[in-house]
Amino acid sequence: MSNGVGIARAYPNMALVKYWGKRDEAMMLPAAGSISMTFDTYATTTRVELDPTAQSDTVELNGQVAGGDAAARVVAFLDIVREMAGSQSRAHTVTVNEAPTAAGLASSASGFSALAVAASRAYGLDLDQAALSRLARRGSGSAARSVVDGMAIWHAGDTDVESFAEPIDAPDMRLVIVTVNAAQKAVSSREAMRRTAATSPFYGEWVTCTEETLERMVAACASGGVDEIGRIAETHALRMHAVIQSCDPPIRYLSPRSHEIFDAVAALRDAGTTAWATADAGPNVAVLTTPAEADAVAGALADLGTVRVVGPGHGARAIDEETARAAFDAARSGT
Amino acid sequence: MSNGVGIARAYPNMALVKYWGKRDEAMMLPAAGSISMTFDTYATTTRVELDPTAQSDTVELNGQVAGGDAAARVVAFLDIVREMAGSQSRAHTVTVNEAPTAAGLASSASGFSALAVAASRAYGLDLDQAALSRLARRGSGSAARSVVDGMAIWHAGDTDVESFAEPIDAPDMRLVIVTVNAAQKAVSSREAMRRTAATSPFYGEWVTCTEETLERMVAACASGGVDEIGRIAETHALRMHAVIQSCDPPIRYLSPRSHEIFDAVAALRDAGTTAWATADAGPNVAVLTTPAEADAVAGALADLGTVRVVGPGHGARAIDEETARAAFDAARSGT
Repeated sequence: MSNGVGIARAYPNMALVKYWGKRDEAMMLPAAGSISMTFDTYATTTRVELDPTAQSDTVELNGQVAGGDAAARVVAFLDIVREMAGSQSRAHTVTVNEAPTAAGLASSASGFSALAVAASRAYGLDLDQAALSRLARRGSGSAARSVVDGMAIWHAGDTDVESFAEPIDAPDMRLVIVTVNAAQKAVSSREAMRRTAATSPFYGEWVTCTEETLERMVAACASGGVDEIGRIAETHALRMHAVIQSCDPPIRYLSPRSHEIFDAVAALRDAGTTAWATADAGPNVAVLTTPAEADAVAGALADLGTVRVVGPGHGARAIDEETARAAFDAARSGT
Repeated sequence: MSNGVGIARAYPNMALVKYWGKRDEAMMLPAAGSISMTFDTYATTTRVELDPTAQSDTVELNGQVAGGDAAARVVAFLDIVREMAGSQSRAHTVTVNEAPTAAGLASSASGFSALAVAASRAYGLDLDQAALSRLARRGSGSAARSVVDGMAIWHAGDTDVESFAEPIDAPDMRLVIVTVNAAQKAVSSREAMRRTAATSPFYGEWVTCTEETLERMVAACASGGVDEIGRIAETHALRMHAVIQSCDPPIRYLSPRSHEIFDAVAALRDAGTTAWATADAGPNVAVLTTPAEADAVAGALADLGTVRVVGPGHGARAIDEETARAAFDAARSGT
């Protein structure tokens, strides 16, 4: 079906068992497995078109020509796809991302999972979901999970072929995303993971406890208790922020406002609501709750940030030109 | 010199290498050593008078008759002193504490070090500083350090006799205490230490890294670099809060306001000021700085809490009746 064009859409995901630390940085193999929910909102839309006459790749991000590290990561990813496809062609990549960037909502997860689907199609590769997950992982570790619908487990694996995500059973749940700050974060996740492995005295035990938490979370998802899933997720999230905070020099991703949200979530629980907090490598907080309670939780937290209720969404998948064009036109018009 | 009366005054201390976790709860032996500065402010004044005719001990705290756990801890401590002295006499204990209680300023440190001096004198014991430190430790671990002037190292020790504090050389420094909340904390330090040892995956490494930090801090204090002392102290404090946060269920002692103060201290450093933050098991933050910069640091943080500059003060010591009476009269008049 490839005519040198691939178009795809993907969404961020929020880890309920966190990925923090790599076993193999070149192959992007994580130190431990993780579990996440792929969102139904904050889409990334990406179109890749081969240009056999071009001397180099071009990358457009959110209506602007991209350079620097952002473009370099896309080119490096396309090099992997070209090697798989045996192609030399350069490509034009256009991508639009609806999520606040670089503030802990893992736009790189939606970005590289969309790019994996779009680029593999443009280069004529026919990859199944596991292969797409492995490929997306090479761009950004957590992108391995955004290939999968709903709840995904990313197996750590010892080799490239073993390290991919697949769906797991879980009850229907909602996340109330509380966005408190869209500013660029001071230390990137990549750099912070390196510093954690190199300087935190707790790093080894963090990896061990993540593997144990993974087993407990799989069991909790299978038995369907949202409170048990949330309890495990919140404790684990605070352990991730603890191990990051224990670096030398320390890194603190949670802002004072993030802590206010954790306090507010604890108060909601005391009042009988199903609500458990988690946060990735940034100040935004995601609050796990049931579908029935999501609007009430969002209302209770609305004074603390911009709230949005998200549910389990589709993994990265191909879309048509028309659907994509609306997203690109909106970005180019500068909205 | 004992006529059945002992009167003493002592001050809180702030650990720059933290004590968190016990090796032996009955004997109050810590899992690792620690280093602290004894304050020159927030005094506790305590008077113990034997009453051979009384059937039980009486305890007055801040102008009120004390009961419950507070009184029980004093009685248990007096039992230790009575056993050392071979006495059966009951006593009247009157104590006034000028620090905000139970919000992380370690009023139990000033309290039990003052009680150690006052009670040992009332019961006619002649104890040197190391013996007073050992005794104070039995009431509250960190009280072992408030017996000592200025900077103190508390050796962990494997036995009662080995576990006491003594002075160490250090440059003249100041702490800007930022009190943000005088409310009773939700989980006591004793309970939180137990939970940490029982449930944190990081606890073993916390003990190991504390011992390493202790050696680095002794060297930094000897060489006199306040920035180096502060850097070690802040990293270590965040590790203590990390290990506490990693419990199941998690415990968070730092409030949103505490995190604002850590952020403000980082901004002061970026602007060239010597300022490093630490916090004990509560929301108040202490900022280590030089004598020359202390007032400027206090001014810069005044919007974030009640600020007070403290310097290195006296260890617990005997005082006369007149000096004590002023403190007791003020408390009884209900100020």
